[in-house]
Amino acid sequence: MNHTLTFTHDEKQASVTVPTNTLLTDAAHLAGIDITQPCGGQGRCGRCAVMVTEGTVRRRSTLRLSPADIEQGYALACQTVVEGDVEIFIPPQEKIERRLTTDRVVAEVTVPADYEYPFAQTVRRVHLTLTPPSMDDQTDDWSRLQTALRLQHRIENPTCSLPLLRKIGSTLRQDDWRVTAIIETSRPSDHATTRPSDHTTIRLIDLLPGHVDEYSPLWGCAIDIGTTTVTLWLVDLVTGQVRAQVAEYNGQIARGEDVISRIIYANKNGGGDELRQRVSGTINSLLELACKRIKLPQGKVTPDQVVKATIAGNTTMMHLLLGIPASSIRLSPFVPTVNHPPMMTGRDIGLNVNPEAAVDCLPGVASYVGADITAGVLSSGLDSAENVTLFLDVGTNGETVLGNRDWLVTCACSAGPAFEGAGVVNGMRATQGAIEEIWINGETLEPTYRVIGGGKPKGICGSGLISLLSEAFITGVIDKGGNVNLSARSPRVREGAHGGEYVVAWGAETESGEDIVITRVDIDNLLRAKAAIYAGFTVLAENVGIPLETVDKVLVGGSFGKYINVEKAVQIGLLPDMDWSRFEFLGNTSVKGAYYALLDWRKRERITEIAKRMTYIELSADNSFYEAFTSALFLPHTDLSKFPSVVEALSSKIEGRTSFDR
Amino acid sequence: MNHTLTFTHDEKQASVTVPTNTLLTDAAHLAGIDITQPCGGQGRCGRCAVMVTEGTVRRRSTLRLSPADIEQGYALACQTVVEGDVEIFIPPQEKIERRLTTDRVVAEVTVPADYEYPFAQTVRRVHLTLTPPSMDDQTDDWSRLQTALRLQHRIENPTCSLPLLRKIGSTLRQDDWRVTAIIETSRPSDHATTRPSDHTTIRLIDLLPGHVDEYSPLWGCAIDIGTTTVTLWLVDLVTGQVRAQVAEYNGQIARGEDVISRIIYANKNGGGDELRQRVSGTINSLLELACKRIKLPQGKVTPDQVVKATIAGNTTMMHLLLGIPASSIRLSPFVPTVNHPPMMTGRDIGLNVNPEAAVDCLPGVASYVGADITAGVLSSGLDSAENVTLFLDVGTNGETVLGNRDWLVTCACSAGPAFEGAGVVNGMRATQGAIEEIWINGETLEPTYRVIGGGKPKGICGSGLISLLSEAFITGVIDKGGNVNLSARSPRVREGAHGGEYVVAWGAETESGEDIVITRVDIDNLLRAKAAIYAGFTVLAENVGIPLETVDKVLVGGSFGKYINVEKAVQIGLLPDMDWSRFEFLGNTSVKGAYYALLDWRKRERITEIAKRMTYIELSADNSFYEAFTSALFLPHTDLSKFPSVVEALSSKIEGRTSFDR
Repeated sequence: MNHTLTFTHDEKQASVTVPTNTLLTDAAHLAGIDITQPCGGQGRCGRCAVMVTEGTVRRRSTLRLSPADIEQGYALACQTVVEGDVEIFIPPQEKIERRLTTDRVVAEVTVPADYEYPFAQTVRRVHLTLTPPSMDDQTDDWSRLQTALRLQHRIENPTCSLPLLRKIGSTLRQDDWRVTAIIETSRPSDHATTRPSDHTTIRLIDLLPGHVDEYSPLWGCAIDIGTTTVTLWLVDLVTGQVRAQVAEYNGQIARGEDVISRIIYANKNGGGDELRQRVSGTINSLLELACKRIKLPQGKVTPDQVVKATIAGNTTMMHLLLGIPASSIRLSPFVPTVNHPPMMTGRDIGLNVNPEAAVDCLPGVASYVGADITAGVLSSGLDSAENVTLFLDVGTNGETVLGNRDWLVTCACSAGPAFEGAGVVNGMRATQGAIEEIWINGETLEPTYRVIGGGKPKGICGSGLISLLSEAFITGVIDKGGNVNLSARSPRVREGAHGGEYVVAWGAETESGEDIVITRVDIDNLLRAKAAIYAGFTVLAENVGIPLETVDKVLVGGSFGKYINVEKAVQIGLLPDMDWSRFEFLGNTSVKGAYYALLDWRKRERITEIAKRMTYIELSADNSFYEAFTSALFLPHTDLSKFPSVVEALSSKIEGRTSFDR
Repeated sequence: MNHTLTFTHDEKQASVTVPTNTLLTDAAHLAGIDITQPCGGQGRCGRCAVMVTEGTVRRRSTLRLSPADIEQGYALACQTVVEGDVEIFIPPQEKIERRLTTDRVVAEVTVPADYEYPFAQTVRRVHLTLTPPSMDDQTDDWSRLQTALRLQHRIENPTCSLPLLRKIGSTLRQDDWRVTAIIETSRPSDHATTRPSDHTTIRLIDLLPGHVDEYSPLWGCAIDIGTTTVTLWLVDLVTGQVRAQVAEYNGQIARGEDVISRIIYANKNGGGDELRQRVSGTINSLLELACKRIKLPQGKVTPDQVVKATIAGNTTMMHLLLGIPASSIRLSPFVPTVNHPPMMTGRDIGLNVNPEAAVDCLPGVASYVGADITAGVLSSGLDSAENVTLFLDVGTNGETVLGNRDWLVTCACSAGPAFEGAGVVNGMRATQGAIEEIWINGETLEPTYRVIGGGKPKGICGSGLISLLSEAFITGVIDKGGNVNLSARSPRVREGAHGGEYVVAWGAETESGEDIVITRVDIDNLLRAKAAIYAGFTVLAENVGIPLETVDKVLVGGSFGKYINVEKAVQIGLLPDMDWSRFEFLGNTSVKGAYYALLDWRKRERITEIAKRMTYIELSADNSFYEAFTSALFLPHTDLSKFPSVVEALSSKIEGRTSFDR
């Protein structure tokens, strides 16, 4: 039986007719309305609540809704099905703003000193001048082109796809049999698992009329698909220079904030396709944006001029991009379909680069240690370190690698996206308007803060949250368990809808006109995130019998990591308490590794080696992880002996302010 | 500006609104009416004439229309554009019936004695039993599968496409990690021009749950794309047996009856795509039909079970199938884009076989000597003949190969589709209802005929036309120039709409109730076709200095060829006048060659060698061809000394009937 649903949203109305038992989220989708589902439609986050104003529905689950909510007509759109004609009001949705790169997202990056085009590069351009056909030489176009490649450039037996073959005839004739060929040479071990290992293969990527200036740019891009943020660098493969850096939220975010929610969503009917399109859509819009950033005397740069792309990202992100079912990643024994994806083209995965562009999805190690980590290990230099080094990737997932040039072990823990600003009421990414550092006066409990870009604050980014947590703890606004001290004498401390909260900025000072606060729930999320990361690397070190103190360096990756105040990060127990000189903050190590691999086939081979060398330790099979996690759920930790500098800071808090400078 | 067109066709009406200057054929297409364009829309055949009953149009060309026709409102739909609102009557269209295989199309074929699966076959099935993953072995699915292939079958480094990779996870888990893999091994020189030649490549074509019975069929198909007819053989690769044979008119016929018209049509906006879809549509419907013919105890056979296809066809047909522009084939110096198409998959060219099925488009020699001829040379055995042998492929194009196991020369001439029943008013293919042989009484000029299937006649097929032409000539119904002798005393000889004509069957005897005739125009078409073929092989023989009389054997390919009466074919000057024992009629040598190549990689290599060995002689650059053609436009020839047996028959015609038996 069919029913008519009328949605009211954003002061507009839309109607749709669907059969009995259709989910409200699906019906809304058909009506052209997108209801955000941060938990991936599991009915866990409560953020897809809508109000049924007319007619009846069947609620499969009402988790996160109070009896009063239900009384009023509220229902979880992802858990409610249609049983008759209904009218539904969709409250204003939490907006996932597409905040694009600012100076904060742009990394300093220099072309590796040993980069030499075309020797290190797998893609190159060659000029060809063919003998035109005649009645005495009726050789077919493709054979003629191959002969020219062989005689003029010693390029033997290139392959050519059918769509490219369709255009070679007209291209050859366009500028009197003068053409520029773009050629890819795959080195033996580029794709050890999918290519025969005893030969190189040569592929024609494109054929352009005339002789293209050999110093003009040849475009490639390095991409990092983070669970929260996608980063893209547009690179001129001739000079090796990064010409544009852009980043944007992963379009999948509306369908789950962590990898588990995404996998669950992908498993629903059509969900996998939707997530694949969402992330390729994000990449395509970033490509467009990056191209627009570049002004060349020769004219515009367009995405289809990109002839090579290298992609890093965690294993789930890679599966979802490729449209490979990811369900086995989530279920014991946590096995992905593929760690070393085969070589693909832009056409294969729906990117708006040249359809024949080589798209190189870097290899990962396991379900929870992906190509973002192997790329990060390369770009951080861990794999060639002499002394034992710890590499932390602080993102939505917390991955840790310990080792040196001789050995590498790794583990993963689900930190959640709290430090990327998700799961925190006033959280946001480190862009314009984000509070990036906070100081709290120990006497008055009044805060001082610094805003990126200097204007009115919009929210708090990762480094601001660490700083806030640390200051609030040191000044007693919250206790070691994260509880807000409601008896503190300050109007900034108050009981909110989600328990105790602290007001960082009054509405009068903020961009939106509403208070910026941190709530008890936010604090819990942050504590779980930092505890997971801390537990991860301590258990890893224990596992291989390396005392943390003996670690020579701690390399911190993750785009927000670059701006962490070490002292504060130690004070909340996110980083181990050791001499600050031993920390290095590297920013987005994943995209940087992808960039190195894009440029140089030897670096690309090195990533395959890293993936093979790394020993993965499964924490879920390890009781000690849960213990370590529980112990780390406090500020800074249950065992204060591990944090001597924090003990000292606490004892000196009576003196007022602590030092704020890194 | 937009105008409304109303079409009346087949007692139905359809309207469409189109801008000024839209062609009537395009407008009709939009209205869902398909106007046949046998000349490909060049305005040459006049068969798309429609009547404008209201409003005005602009006629770009009125070739084939008389002033009286135009007065009445007739216009060529392919040459007329809209300039205002109009009403158009489309006369009943010449029907291109989809006559499917009868016993006449089914060839006798035996599995080659040396066929041994899987040794000769590039595709095979292997059973695998994998160790399931566990917390102690978290290897990814694809690596696990590769390990099993290596350890259990020594299959190293297979490649796997992304769409296949997407399903391996669930397939592996479906029957407890027991699977059947379908594997293709490409031998070194299979695709010499597109694959590196120093190694074999291994590709995963499909993965099925459980262990499939190793004696159950593994399906492949051999396809011949003729300009007029497409033939498909469905083959069990395990036994090598042809299990179904089907044939159908090439769906492109409505867009041109010969390759030149098709190339012109393909060059129009969207024409190439349309022709590509028309021929792949024909193949897909043949596939469907062939599958339905097979009943197995295991259940139905479906097209997607076909894991390998081998395709032969002339160079234009191959380009049009692959969607490669064919325009350079038509223009001097007559160069195709590709003679050796690279390896493709079912997905690449839109066939409903398994999307990963290897689709092997056989190599051709030149623009007018394609893979149908290389396959024909293989299956006819010419390439291993000890003595000099002539191979004729009598189809829409007339190709000739002369040679033996040491050398091969070839040429092509455009014979046209007259012997396939096209371009002849009552022509039809050799199926149910076709008159296949005719005798004319020398006294009464009354005919006797034999109909395929024995019922009422519907038309005349190729062998019937040869027989009719010969009998009419010998009995004086027509003279050596092909003119109908209107002074002959018989009601069957009369003046028709197209000049003189001879009535083969009165309406009372025929299926349609209308007279079956042969007209002056038909005779001209037949004379041109036979003259082109005769001129082709005589010029070829002259070119290499081999007197025709010294040719040891004449092998005749082409599906209609099988039923030619040699005597009659010699009498009209289609075949050279030599001892009948030297002729062999082989039927569709092209599909047979494709079948051999499908089965055995050594045969497939042999075709590549044949293509390389053949020397192509361009007749259009040869004045002697035109001379030879003109001399052969008579019955049997201007030079009667070349046809002593015909001279003898003519001299004995006074005695009445000639011998009819072959």
